[in-house]
Parts: sequence; structure tokens; C-alpha cells
Amino acid sequence: MGKKVFGVDVGGTSVKLGMFEGDGTLIEKWSIPTRTEEDGKHVLPDIAEAIKAKMAEKSCLAEDVFGVGIGLPGPVDDDGVINKAVNLGWDRVFNVSKELSGHLGGIKVRAGNDANVAALGEAWAGSGKGYNNIVMVTLGTGIGGGIVVDGNIYAGVTGSAGEIGHIHISDEPIEACNCGNCGCLEQFGSATGIVRLLKKELESSDDDSIMRTAPLNAKDMWEAVKKGDALATRVAEKFGAYLGKGLAVIANIINPELFIIGGGVSMSGDVILPFITKNFDKYVFHACKEVKFVRSVLGNDGGIYGAAKLVM
Amino acid sequence: MGKKVFGVDVGGTSVKLGMFEGDGTLIEKWSIPTRTEEDGKHVLPDIAEAIKAKMAEKSCLAEDVFGVGIGLPGPVDDDGVINKAVNLGWDRVFNVSKELSGHLGGIKVRAGNDANVAALGEAWAGSGKGYNNIVMVTLGTGIGGGIVVDGNIYAGVTGSAGEIGHIHISDEPIEACNCGNCGCLEQFGSATGIVRLLKKELESSDDDSIMRTAPLNAKDMWEAVKKGDALATRVAEKFGAYLGKGLAVIANIINPELFIIGGGVSMSGDVILPFITKNFDKYVFHACKEVKFVRSVLGNDGGIYGAAKLVM
Repeated sequence: MGKKVFGVDVGGTSVKLGMFEGDGTLIEKWSIPTRTEEDGKHVLPDIAEAIKAKMAEKSCLAEDVFGVGIGLPGPVDDDGVINKAVNLGWDRVFNVSKELSGHLGGIKVRAGNDANVAALGEAWAGSGKGYNNIVMVTLGTGIGGGIVVDGNIYAGVTGSAGEIGHIHISDEPIEACNCGNCGCLEQFGSATGIVRLLKKELESSDDDSIMRTAPLNAKDMWEAVKKGDALATRVAEKFGAYLGKGLAVIANIINPELFIIGGGVSMSGDVILPFITKNFDKYVFHACKEVKFVRSVLGNDGGIYGAAKLVM
Repeated sequence: MGKKVFGVDVGGTSVKLGMFEGDGTLIEKWSIPTRTEEDGKHVLPDIAEAIKAKMAEKSCLAEDVFGVGIGLPGPVDDDGVINKAVNLGWDRVFNVSKELSGHLGGIKVRAGNDANVAALGEAWAGSGKGYNNIVMVTLGTGIGGGIVVDGNIYAGVTGSAGEIGHIHISDEPIEACNCGNCGCLEQFGSATGIVRLLKKELESSDDDSIMRTAPLNAKDMWEAVKKGDALATRVAEKFGAYLGKGLAVIANIINPELFIIGGGVSMSGDVILPFITKNFDKYVFHACKEVKFVRSVLGNDGGIYGAAKLVM
């Protein structure tokens, strides 16, 4: 049999795993729960057990495995050292690659930050195919970012490049962000940010709107926009103003070829894109203007693809 | 004789040239005027003549020259194609490297954007020695930026990465920037920006100040700060707030090891740094916080050093 590769995407609730052929074809994907109790000490052994069980099931020997890639919710340096991952209960600095490799009898492991790894997956096997200079923007509960240049993750000096959710975008008075600062992009441009903008719009206006009775979440807001709801459309405009302004700043600095918009908010469809690009065009420097916007195609699988690519 | 290298830094008024040993030792530097008339058609032939005259003077043959590097005030791609340079009268898109090489009988030429090339010079032979991940910030009439990663310029997909002067930093009502947008970082954080902030402060306050009679420029403003002038110090605080906020955004995206502050404003000395870093600390994401701030040491020579390094 040809060499196999495993890609692992570790989240705070579940760990997604994928077994791939050496050419990147997905053989099978599955998931296990993330056991964060006892300072997350079970996380890596559980992952190793899951991989070993799958290898046994497929009659795959250690020498048939090229390696294991893993994406983690924290800053990871080039050597695989993670500097804490609060969502996993990890309050320590240690080498994830070495530790997981130890649990796997020495199989090669490479680790990266989850947002960066998802960007790599999308660049390699998703919307970014054929582009060399990509910024992936994940619009979920927060906003994550990953930069891929010439097929490699650009991680920065401590593995924290692409922390675009926390760029300061507004001086308006607002409650503090989870990071402790105020006016961060993710306070306006994430799913949570959309709900914040929506509540404010509902309070400050007496207009009729689908959103007066619909559940207050980003998904229903975009459905209302699709139906032509005026209040929801005003919220979409505001969301787009913050995000377009933020992505223009990123374009001026990075000068990418492509922005890939992923995460839960992107699942609402292409309806979100013009609200972003209209404002992007307004704020970007002319020489950095030629950049395409597309949505993620791999969705939640970006992480396992990117993790697999990490070790190839 | 060992192989020689020439570094050329082209500005709108003068062209600086340097002749270097292959190990990077500067042999001699000089400058010639930039003749921008007739659509700048004399610029490259003049540079070629200056290099050939220096070669003759030093009895240096074409085979003794490893190559010529050149920094230009416009976006330049990896192949040496420049997309206009208004300050040189160039309203066309053409391959500078090939054209200059033609004027030099085929000597190898490599070209780059001047801000990027200056960053490379500073990274290689100046304040950035020993650092791998650098953002150089040039505070002059405007604000330029250059990013150097692992000893190479990060130029972006169209050679326009690091256009940090035009990141949107403020929604305050203000006249348009030269780029056509409003609220660009260079409208507040450049030498011109300092004068703007200073005028505003002088108009909005009746306080005594050295700046009531001193020339209204950035240099005199910083001299007043050094003398403890309260009004000038308030201006310095405002300058630092805009610039610190802007550099925090850059740090969140790029996660650099080092910021090098260059350009005319940096000549006023280390007095400028705390005003920047205090505000940087306030806005940066915690994981991107560990970055050093230093001033440029090469000053106006950064361009010729970087250009020489480009071709080495």
C-alpha cells in the first residue's frame, strides 16, 4: 500500500480526524470528543489511540504512515511548541509534536495553529487552489485568520501571525473584547458581532422587520437579508463596513491575491460578499486593490486537509 | 580583484549610488540628480553612465561586477517589472531590470520597491542584524513600510505589501490623503502629520509654548518635547496614539520580531519611541506583544545597502 497521512483538527468540543492517501485523497474522516478535564491530559493520548485504532482497522503498519499533522487552538511555533491552549485546558508550554509522536511510537508529527492550518487546507485542496498568496478569514464566534504564501503557512515569529480578529477597528465606546482590548474587529464582524449590531439596530429603530420575531443569530439575519428585509440589510451594511475596512488594512500590509471567507457566517452564502467588497474597495490602497474574494469550499474539513498537508 | 556590487537608490530629486565589495563593505558612495523631464527617459541611462564612469575610474571590468541592485519609488514585481513611478515621470509598465541591464552591456540587475529595499538594507547591515522577521517603518513626508522575512523582502503579489502609510486608522473628519482616501495613518504619523496635529493643538489651546514662535516642523516639535514643552508633548502623545495603534494592527497580522523606525522623524532621536510603544502596548493582541522597537542606523544609506543586497 502507498504511504498514508493523518490530519487532526483539535477543537474545544471535538477532535476531527482524517486519513489520507499520500496524494491528498481523503480515505475516511471521523471525530472523537475532546476530553479537556484534568488539564487536558487525555487529549493527545486519545488522539493517538484513535489513530492507532484506525491503523489496525485498515491493516496499516507504522512504516506505511508518512506522518501525522495536527492543528491546535493556540500559538504553535515552527518546532511544534505550543504556548498554552485555554480551550483544551492546557496551561503549559510544551512540544506537542514530540509528545504526540511519543504516543505514536515515533511516527513523524507536525503541529500548527488551527486557523493557519485551516488556511493551508483551503489553499491546497479548497478555494485557494492555484493561488500563491492567500489570507483566510474565519468568521465564527470570533474571527480567525491564516496567511499562506507560496504554499506555506506564514506564522510569524511566535506563531501568532494572522490574529486579525483583534486588530483595532473602532474607537466607539463598547464593552471589552475577550482579549481585554476594545474595538477589535471580531466585536463587529463575527457571528457574535452581527448579533450585537442587530440588537442595536432593533433597539434604535421602530421599523418592522422579520428580525423582531426571528431568533437573534447571524444565520437568521442573513436569511432576512435574502428576503429583502430593510432592517437586516442595514445590519449587513454595518457588518460589511467594519469587515471591509479591516480587510483593506490587511490587504495594504500583506498584498494578497485572494481572501477566502470561511467559518459559520460564510455558510449563509454569496449574499455576504458584496457587503464586504463594497467597503473594501472604499478603504484599500489602490496598488493593493486587485484581490479576489471567495468563500471557503472545505468548510469544517479545512482543518484536517491542512493538517495532512502540514506533514506532507 | 574580488567581485564588486553596485547599489542604487532612486528618488525623485537625486539618485544615490554605492559601490560595494562582495562581502558588503561600502567602497564609495555618491549621488547624481534625477532628470525626470521627458517622461523620465534619462533616468536609467544616467544611472548606467554613472556606474560605467565609476567602473572606469576604479579600473573595474564588467566581469568584475557581480551585479547591480536598484530600489525604485513604485511597485516592482519579482521579475523587475515596475507599474509606474509618478515621481520619476514614468507613466508606463516595463521591466526596469532588463532595461538597465541593456544599458550596462548585460550586467545582472535586480530591482525592488524603495521602501522594501531600504528595509532589506537595514535588516542586513543596520539595526536589523540578527533578526529574521522585521517591519521597517519610514516616517518621512509620508509613511513607507517594508517587510523582511528570513532575509528576504516580502513584497506581496503585486509588489505592494507594506503600504502601511495608507492603512485606515481614523474616522475623524479630515481632508483627503494624497491616495484619495481619508484617515490614512500617514495623515497623522508622518512629519506632515505631526505638523497637522501641531497646528490643530496651537489653534485649540491658548497655552504658552515654544512652538508659538518656532518653525512649524516635526524636528522643532521634537526639540520642544525634549525641553519639556507641555503643548509639544501633547502633540507627541497624539502622534504616538495614532502610530502605536497602527503598528499594533501590523503586529497582529505579521507578528514580527522587530520594528525599525526610520525616516526623517526618527532622526529626532530615541525621544520618539516611548510615545509609540506606550500606545502600541495598549492596542496589540497579547500573543503579538513581544516585539522590539529600534531606530534605523543606516539612515539615508539604507537604500543603497539594500539594493546591493538584493543582487548578492
